[in-house]
Amino acid sequence: MNNTLTILGCGSAMPTIQNSPSGQLLEMSGKQFLIDCGEGIQITLRRMSQRINRLDHIFISHLHGDHCFGLLGLISTLGMLGRTRDLYIHAQADLQRLMQPLLDYFCQGMEYKVIFDVIRPNKHVVIYEDRTLTVKTIPLKHRVPSCGFLFEEKPKERHIIKEQMDFYNIPLAAIPALKAGEDYLNSDGKLIENERLTTAPNPPFRFAYCSDTAYLEKIVPLIQGVDCLYHESTYTDEHAARAKETQHSTARQAATIAKLANVNQLIIGHFSARIDDHLQFLAEAREVFPNTLLAEERQQYKL
Amino acid sequence: MNNTLTILGCGSAMPTIQNSPSGQLLEMSGKQFLIDCGEGIQITLRRMSQRINRLDHIFISHLHGDHCFGLLGLISTLGMLGRTRDLYIHAQADLQRLMQPLLDYFCQGMEYKVIFDVIRPNKHVVIYEDRTLTVKTIPLKHRVPSCGFLFEEKPKERHIIKEQMDFYNIPLAAIPALKAGEDYLNSDGKLIENERLTTAPNPPFRFAYCSDTAYLEKIVPLIQGVDCLYHESTYTDEHAARAKETQHSTARQAATIAKLANVNQLIIGHFSARIDDHLQFLAEAREVFPNTLLAEERQQYKL
Repeated sequence: MNNTLTILGCGSAMPTIQNSPSGQLLEMSGKQFLIDCGEGIQITLRRMSQRINRLDHIFISHLHGDHCFGLLGLISTLGMLGRTRDLYIHAQADLQRLMQPLLDYFCQGMEYKVIFDVIRPNKHVVIYEDRTLTVKTIPLKHRVPSCGFLFEEKPKERHIIKEQMDFYNIPLAAIPALKAGEDYLNSDGKLIENERLTTAPNPPFRFAYCSDTAYLEKIVPLIQGVDCLYHESTYTDEHAARAKETQHSTARQAATIAKLANVNQLIIGHFSARIDDHLQFLAEAREVFPNTLLAEERQQYKL
Repeated sequence: MNNTLTILGCGSAMPTIQNSPSGQLLEMSGKQFLIDCGEGIQITLRRMSQRINRLDHIFISHLHGDHCFGLLGLISTLGMLGRTRDLYIHAQADLQRLMQPLLDYFCQGMEYKVIFDVIRPNKHVVIYEDRTLTVKTIPLKHRVPSCGFLFEEKPKERHIIKEQMDFYNIPLAAIPALKAGEDYLNSDGKLIENERLTTAPNPPFRFAYCSDTAYLEKIVPLIQGVDCLYHESTYTDEHAARAKETQHSTARQAATIAKLANVNQLIIGHFSARIDDHLQFLAEAREVFPNTLLAEERQQYKL
């Protein structure tokens, strides 16, 4: 199953002709996760004809409008579409306090529940877990409390070598233990080592989302070696002073984090409305970290 | 000066590939008015490169999300753009109660004030007045309290006939009185009738916005003879039962109101996501009222 990232919005606070506020749909291990939900995200999903029938969890990085003003419209539309499954919103406590009166007023009679799960952005802890993956917060540094999210698959099962199973005449009932790495004791009392019967599992896939944040080296150990890092890149070198002042990152800083963390792939986004030519971001990032891609709205990235 | 109507969104509650939630920008007598503000309106304005530097008043017809979820984003962006002039929102009392905590949280430090003016949708009264025009509420019938808006220019001044002024040797100081319709008494004591010196003014321009509403004949006298009527047309004949149930109108009903009110021009919008082919709306409306136009997003209509 492919892991994909669909960029729904990769602008910063001010919408532009090119870019809408933040939002992205992560498909991982057969599930869907929405990360941030700026205004217009539900409209973009519709225009892309993107189905979100496996979406049960939304993660909000911080409480600036360009990361959450689209929630109410999305929730309302899901109600009209007849959703019945609970929807979880993982966000700082203030969001529920602010949104609940509006949900009560505008979304009366919906057949599903919206459940707020309070996250503390200054902790690096598991905030979501299921059979195949976990999500952890990544404390960031911004003008308001902000955190990224680390999506990590759990260690996977080993792959059975079918020919060896036949050769050793191993019953099907033994497969779960073999996939878990155990050796096999056959009826003659002979031990067959697991390595003869299986191959190593695929390494667990890991994706990190880091936005909004100033340049922050202390996240490096938390995202070390991830397959893909989405890191905000609001400004170019020319606006480095403004990046510092507003606690955002430049493309070069995003790339530096990617390099220090030895990630496989970097995607940069959250582009300032001040900068029209996005190739500038790309050029500056690639000087430091060549395997960088530009986020583009309505594009899907295979991870 | 041209009066224009720019359609920013003409869908109903559910966004589609074609349509966003409601919003339109009316330019009249040199001023700008925003009528309804569904999610994404500020993004559409940006993508159209539409300036709104003469916008001081927003009118919200009723408190369904597709008519007001875009307010917060718009207000926030205007703050970032450095707006300093007060912005007035004319809406039912609940909107301020619901929005004020979010404005206080998300829009701290803005250099302009958002002032809520409470309207009572069941009254037909003046809710805005300036030197050249008035805005009145039009009570509608919907699942929640709802009202339309009637924008009316005040009676204009008569036009001076320059040649006659020269012929009778009338001083410039007399012009204001002549424009107001008074006769002129010259220095010989002779009365020169106003009709010799002026021609009739242009008739005051009138625009009516009626959305959302069930078919409601009692609005006919309130909008009699307007130059342009925007009337909701959520459904086609095929869905007439659903229109009744949800207290919306069909295209044919919108056209019937236009015909009964003897308006000059009808524009229909607020199209249901169930109906892809908008020409159906147009065909059904034109059977009753030929001078009907379809609302299309990002189109500007000269009124």
